[in-house]
Amino acid sequence: MHVVVPFDGRDPKTRLAPVLDAPERRDFARAMLADVAETIESISFEPTILATTDVECEWPVVVDERSLDAAVNDQLAVADGPVAVVMADLALVTPDALDRLFRAGGEVVLAPGRGGGTNAFVARHHDFRVDYHDASITDHRSIAEEIGADTVEVDSFRLASDVDEPDDLAEVLLHGEGRAAAWLREHGFDLSMDEGRVSVQR
Amino acid sequence: MHVVVPFDGRDPKTRLAPVLDAPERRDFARAMLADVAETIESISFEPTILATTDVECEWPVVVDERSLDAAVNDQLAVADGPVAVVMADLALVTPDALDRLFRAGGEVVLAPGRGGGTNAFVARHHDFRVDYHDASITDHRSIAEEIGADTVEVDSFRLASDVDEPDDLAEVLLHGEGRAAAWLREHGFDLSMDEGRVSVQR
Repeated sequence: MHVVVPFDGRDPKTRLAPVLDAPERRDFARAMLADVAETIESISFEPTILATTDVECEWPVVVDERSLDAAVNDQLAVADGPVAVVMADLALVTPDALDRLFRAGGEVVLAPGRGGGTNAFVARHHDFRVDYHDASITDHRSIAEEIGADTVEVDSFRLASDVDEPDDLAEVLLHGEGRAAAWLREHGFDLSMDEGRVSVQR
Repeated sequence: MHVVVPFDGRDPKTRLAPVLDAPERRDFARAMLADVAETIESISFEPTILATTDVECEWPVVVDERSLDAAVNDQLAVADGPVAVVMADLALVTPDALDRLFRAGGEVVLAPGRGGGTNAFVARHHDFRVDYHDASITDHRSIAEEIGADTVEVDSFRLASDVDEPDDLAEVLLHGEGRAAAWLREHGFDLSMDEGRVSVQR
């Protein structure tokens, strides 16, 4: 299976600007990417990084400067078999969670993200295409239905937890076990209680 | 297994006040309770509602006016076997998600909630007790470790998604299939896009 990890190498994680400056956001995004790529390797798949600009790393990189939709859809169109797409900001990912995604039956397997996103999927149907705008999980359900694909969803908190906003960092500190969690601790982040839900302080 | 569903029958879901008035919050909370209780029944367990005040419903009700911690810990102390505690606001719950929780091995099985909560658990160790304050998932991990319980966590987005705040309603509209989702639609709620994540409008 061709496993693709889209990654914004230019100005990643802009919504973390309230708590991280631009070089820190790049470092932290790289730590999350490493967590995701290493977890993919740990269950014996090889990640390909699909990046907006060249990224120095130990994994094969395909540079595609177009939009996320165009770049991912090109990967889907040229693939000669199943394709998995796993977002680079899933800092809570575990081998078990990815294994459940990759092993789930279905021509299209969707892993919903909090807030209507699609954080990962497997396409075993050649006509499946992505549309990441707005509530992409509903679009992807519709696209899968239109092409007549047998579709299942994987119910995983770890795959649902992408890291976009400052509050998401609390989830990394609570549940992450990899480089991203270590990066946050090394850079002075700690949990803070705020009206019944946890946030972070630095 | 004794399956307990704690429920605030007095003034539930106060953090939904920006979008629902008090009678609506009670109605909506009852719809979520019915979703949870019926899902428990659908996999052949019988829910007991552990309520702060008497609640008219088709399930057995135990009234305990004390704090959530005291009421749940009393249920754990008097039980003569395994106890499951499932929060009443898990409007995305499915039979599969609950089945994974109930069948998971481990003397303590924890289902983390977003924001550091513990949305459901199974205790098969007589000394396990709860402490729902602050980031309860970390407290519950510590308590389980202190008593030497073999502990596992269930990775479920549906169990992680409790409904406390207006943004959480979007998850119910996106993924819920039960009474709570129907209630929101009947009361004019719809998805609305807001900077890359979905929220609700009415």
